[in-house]
Amino acid sequence: MSQSVIKVGVVGASGYTGEELVRVLARHPRVRLAAVCSRSLAGKSVADELPRLRGIVDPALKFSASSPEECAASDVDAWFLALPHGVAAEYARPLVAAGRRVLDLSADFRLRDLASYRKHYGHEHPAPELAAAARYVIPELQSDTSWKSAPLIACPGCYPTSIQVPVVPLLRAGLLRPEPGRLVINSCSGVSGAGKKAEVAYLFSERDGSMKAYGVPGHRHIAEIEEQFAAAAGAPVVVQFSPHLAPMHRGIATTIVVPAPGVTAAQVEEVWRRAYAGRPFVTVLASGDFPDTAHVAGTNRVAFSAVADPRTGNLVITSVIDNLLKGAGGQAVQCLNLIMGWDEAEGLR
Amino acid sequence: MSQSVIKVGVVGASGYTGEELVRVLARHPRVRLAAVCSRSLAGKSVADELPRLRGIVDPALKFSASSPEECAASDVDAWFLALPHGVAAEYARPLVAAGRRVLDLSADFRLRDLASYRKHYGHEHPAPELAAAARYVIPELQSDTSWKSAPLIACPGCYPTSIQVPVVPLLRAGLLRPEPGRLVINSCSGVSGAGKKAEVAYLFSERDGSMKAYGVPGHRHIAEIEEQFAAAAGAPVVVQFSPHLAPMHRGIATTIVVPAPGVTAAQVEEVWRRAYAGRPFVTVLASGDFPDTAHVAGTNRVAFSAVADPRTGNLVITSVIDNLLKGAGGQAVQCLNLIMGWDEAEGLR
Amino acid sequence: MSQSVIKVGVVGASGYTGEELVRVLARHPRVRLAAVCSRSLAGKSVADELPRLRGIVDPALKFSASSPEECAASDVDAWFLALPHGVAAEYARPLVAAGRRVLDLSADFRLRDLASYRKHYGHEHPAPELAAAARYVIPELQSDTSWKSAPLIACPGCYPTSIQVPVVPLLRAGLLRPEPGRLVINSCSGVSGAGKKAEVAYLFSERDGSMKAYGVPGHRHIAEIEEQFAAAAGAPVVVQFSPHLAPMHRGIATTIVVPAPGVTAAQVEEVWRRAYAGRPFVTVLASGDFPDTAHVAGTNRVAFSAVADPRTGNLVITSVIDNLLKGAGGQAVQCLNLIMGWDEAEGLR
Amino acid sequence: MSQSVIKVGVVGASGYTGEELVRVLARHPRVRLAAVCSRSLAGKSVADELPRLRGIVDPALKFSASSPEECAASDVDAWFLALPHGVAAEYARPLVAAGRRVLDLSADFRLRDLASYRKHYGHEHPAPELAAAARYVIPELQSDTSWKSAPLIACPGCYPTSIQVPVVPLLRAGLLRPEPGRLVINSCSGVSGAGKKAEVAYLFSERDGSMKAYGVPGHRHIAEIEEQFAAAAGAPVVVQFSPHLAPMHRGIATTIVVPAPGVTAAQVEEVWRRAYAGRPFVTVLASGDFPDTAHVAGTNRVAFSAVADPRTGNLVITSVIDNLLKGAGGQAVQCLNLIMGWDEAEGLR
Repeated sequence: MSQSVIKVGVVGASGYTGEELVRVLARHPRVRLAAVCSRSLAGKSVADELPRLRGIVDPALKFSASSPEECAASDVDAWFLALPHGVAAEYARPLVAAGRRVLDLSADFRLRDLASYRKHYGHEHPAPELAAAARYVIPELQSDTSWKSAPLIACPGCYPTSIQVPVVPLLRAGLLRPEPGRLVINSCSGVSGAGKKAEVAYLFSERDGSMKAYGVPGHRHIAEIEEQFAAAAGAPVVVQFSPHLAPMHRGIATTIVVPAPGVTAAQVEEVWRRAYAGRPFVTVLASGDFPDTAHVAGTNRVAFSAVADPRTGNLVITSVIDNLLKGAGGQAVQCLNLIMGWDEAEGLR
Repeated sequence: MSQSVIKVGVVGASGYTGEELVRVLARHPRVRLAAVCSRSLAGKSVADELPRLRGIVDPALKFSASSPEECAASDVDAWFLALPHGVAAEYARPLVAAGRRVLDLSADFRLRDLASYRKHYGHEHPAPELAAAARYVIPELQSDTSWKSAPLIACPGCYPTSIQVPVVPLLRAGLLRPEPGRLVINSCSGVSGAGKKAEVAYLFSERDGSMKAYGVPGHRHIAEIEEQFAAAAGAPVVVQFSPHLAPMHRGIATTIVVPAPGVTAAQVEEVWRRAYAGRPFVTVLASGDFPDTAHVAGTNRVAFSAVADPRTGNLVITSVIDNLLKGAGGQAVQCLNLIMGWDEAEGLR
Repeated sequence: MSQSVIKVGVVGASGYTGEELVRVLARHPRVRLAAVCSRSLAGKSVADELPRLRGIVDPALKFSASSPEECAASDVDAWFLALPHGVAAEYARPLVAAGRRVLDLSADFRLRDLASYRKHYGHEHPAPELAAAARYVIPELQSDTSWKSAPLIACPGCYPTSIQVPVVPLLRAGLLRPEPGRLVINSCSGVSGAGKKAEVAYLFSERDGSMKAYGVPGHRHIAEIEEQFAAAAGAPVVVQFSPHLAPMHRGIATTIVVPAPGVTAAQVEEVWRRAYAGRPFVTVLASGDFPDTAHVAGTNRVAFSAVADPRTGNLVITSVIDNLLKGAGGQAVQCLNLIMGWDEAEGLR
Repeated sequence: MSQSVIKVGVVGASGYTGEELVRVLARHPRVRLAAVCSRSLAGKSVADELPRLRGIVDPALKFSASSPEECAASDVDAWFLALPHGVAAEYARPLVAAGRRVLDLSADFRLRDLASYRKHYGHEHPAPELAAAARYVIPELQSDTSWKSAPLIACPGCYPTSIQVPVVPLLRAGLLRPEPGRLVINSCSGVSGAGKKAEVAYLFSERDGSMKAYGVPGHRHIAEIEEQFAAAAGAPVVVQFSPHLAPMHRGIATTIVVPAPGVTAAQVEEVWRRAYAGRPFVTVLASGDFPDTAHVAGTNRVAFSAVADPRTGNLVITSVIDNLLKGAGGQAVQCLNLIMGWDEAEGLR
């Protein structure tokens, strides 16, 4: 077994996503966490700076401030990038050039349409040639295994994961009628989704007791949702997406309303069961049993169910994930597991 | 001034809505809280059983177990009923017969269509003759003052209040295109909305960190929303309503998506400003400024704003209230104020 | 009555204490809120920047950036200073010189012993002559009315208020045996006690689910507690004080263990009832009924009770306050009410 | 390795402690979870009733209602009892008689002094002969391995674990002067410590924003704390223990004040480091670094530190645990690991 242990590194490990990645990788039986990079924390002890990881990481482990070139020159086999968009590409380019596996959690490589990237992120794409070679991967939605040999995996955003897993199979099966603007998505995210930013808006005293919408109507995640939905539907899809902040640390609850006249919950469940047979992280709940963020917190699972409303002809789909795991680091590790030919759930149970 | 002080009573004061009513009425300068009724707490001290009211209610005030007939025979001028549906009607009938003012917070008199009542509440209406005479009142939406002489005021549900205040003026103005099932409403409620029920589902340890949908697609509040929307639109309206539980004590955040092609946020705001000029509890926020439950907690205000999404042709309206005040007891007191000819905000600032 | 309306101002209104002061003063029937000062928010709308105050403050009210001299030159009668220590003195000096009433919520004038000030605050006292003239006031603990004519009132800290109200009368009555280090105080504060600081440590995602001690053993509030206890006991008192952060927005719960062999809860309650007869904000609970921060949130009350433990010879006293009201702005307004000869609870019910 | 897999069962699995035990045991590599018993949920699916365990337990696993005799007659090797006191003994007796390993999480076998049991639990001990043979075990505090052959392990309470781990080595080392009543302990517990009881007092709407003491001065856990402290100190110890409820799901934060004149933090840390060298679940923090419940949530760790206060001659020790793991099920599994000769941390990392 020992020959299959590979060396992995995390760049941008000081945030909540990075911390969760480090937690998962430190306990993963088939990887050795060889590098944990953070410019702001370079030289400091990981266990001291991220005390939730005490007892999990090696007490001697320290943050390093490695440059993209230093990372590429090291003998680390696979890199997880938990960096802001724009910065991720700076690391991705030399790492890919050096033949390293790259799992990017930023938005840099999620879009195939670079005009869409420019529009949503406000600058030219920093590495267009790499964007063309990258693959956007929710493992449960891949129809073949070609993605495993891509030089770079673009891990989806947290909201998009909670949305695509239940919806994409239904679009592919032609069960939905997503006329423009009629696929209405509401998501409620825990505060960790905003990152570890020292801003008044994210203080406990501001968010406690607070539910509110934000970023409506033009949240950046719409770009990747629509690009993926179009591929699944074989035609453009225009969604109405309204994200909200909820007073909790982690989790996303998404509610999707979409016209599907005459479609029953049983039909929907049949499509889901076929699409997700044997997938360890997908829980299809019975119609009328609504998923709960508290039930997936700390796991890599996505849980969802559907009700059909004969009064309106709509399906109402509700789904939940842990934004830091299935919505970020957990899904990235799941990708690595599959790339390496390991059990999909290795280190994630 | 003293001649205008009236005696008021609360029936069903042991729950969260009842407690909030008692809090408001105990500090209201123009009423005397003469009776606080609860069968389960009869004979006990109000301040001891509802300790958040210590220092607010008279320390000598005790719960009584008054029957409907005893209430009707007393000299209390106005009664607030914070009772389960079905039970409220038992009190309402003799109180109205005795000429008392009745402000009912239950669902018993919210629907004009008694077939709809039977369908949603599972039994024949307990007092059909009174249902015909009752008036369903959100004060800001009344076009004349005739409601003030009704023998009984049916106070709207919490969700419906957060929904109707922003939407009804737009329906009246003909700005929306609410084809069946296309008026999509998502609401997130604090846990107090479930009442003070000793059930495992509402324990701190179950709800902390938990966001989840429930009661989709057939929540009872749909009946009153659609009855009122039909009246405003002059045609039937079929809504898609999805309520959720959020990990907070109080507050409702509602997000409404509705087709309104070509309509701008400015047009919407103009309608709102006209409809709500001078109303002390309505806050119209600028487009792009999203309301926050934490900002209205403990107040009788409703705050909302709209964005128009040119990509989809939809309006997205977000609104917030405190479910226990504007969504229940506060609005009931607001009605009493207006009936009595007092300042609308008396005791509610 | 109108001749008794006075003009008041708040300096440092952008923080949580300042906001709460503005809320109380805006609704206070006998004051007019004439100035709300904040350098960081100067020129901005108060209702926009502190949206919890919408519907409470005049929508036209703006923050000003008034200098100490400008404040002193204005016709505002009384000033509340919600400023950091050191800065408060800069405002206090010209305001007092100009004959304005000053209610200072900072630590600048809480200590009579200026060596203690230097030791705890790290610099020489900025206005020693004023420190000598100032009075440290918890209204319920004043034995005469001489404090009302002091040029400056030093409002106690939040922890000290929760501690002194129950303990001082017992020290005065000689019921306790507070040998050095045996008066053991544990307090748990809501996160608003840390102020509106944009620091990672106070993010929702850090504090949710988190209880922890901090600042042990040398928290600055010890200085004022011991100075006041010494005055009450007629001898030096050395306390052991351990503050904690609790995962809630507001509130302080304090638990005090102190030797009092042979003393019964009934004796303690007798002292308290005598000391606090008629005081509207003091709630003495029965022995065995433990106070709860949720029951005093949003009020100016302090609630407490005592149990005597015959096994140990100790009294265990538990008390709660709202740190932003009785622990800060509410108590300051209470002082103003008494100075002006108004009802102690005016504007605070 | 497969020969060392043993069969384990949990009785009383419907509560929060039982759920956590099932979670740990279902993922433990060296046990097979063969029986999950709950009278109230018998016949129901574990994953449906405890949805946080979906994806962790076998979807086919069902609760059984096995009687003590049925459990004893089965081929399950080790049993965890997560039952109320009194009931646990009914199961323990036949299980021990049948030669099964029993790890009891109730209070039934924690006390050697049966008069103390009668006094604190209100009835005669239900199985005195077994009480004499049982061993009360915090693994880190055992000075030899004789406990591993005891027929029954009494797992300590949650509060006592957070208290004894830091204090017992100091008592053994003679560093403390715990005169009667001077060992002052304050603990703040998450709401899950109250169990999954459908009572109004534990509703989200009651506990949100609420800190309060309870059960002072006579909490039952005092009995086991004092029995263990006496053994460690070689003399009776009388503690002052004040438990509190904090607004969080899980975790205990304990603050202990005890006279230790002249003792330094360095001396304390030296004792701790010697006592706990190599123990995977003990984290000794530097003096001045205070432990945080959020940092140990979901782990079996106990973290603590000490400051010496030269002003008072006291040590102030602060410690945290997860009440459901190190305070209950995690510690029980740790005991099983050691009994079986496995790695202490097996299944608990």
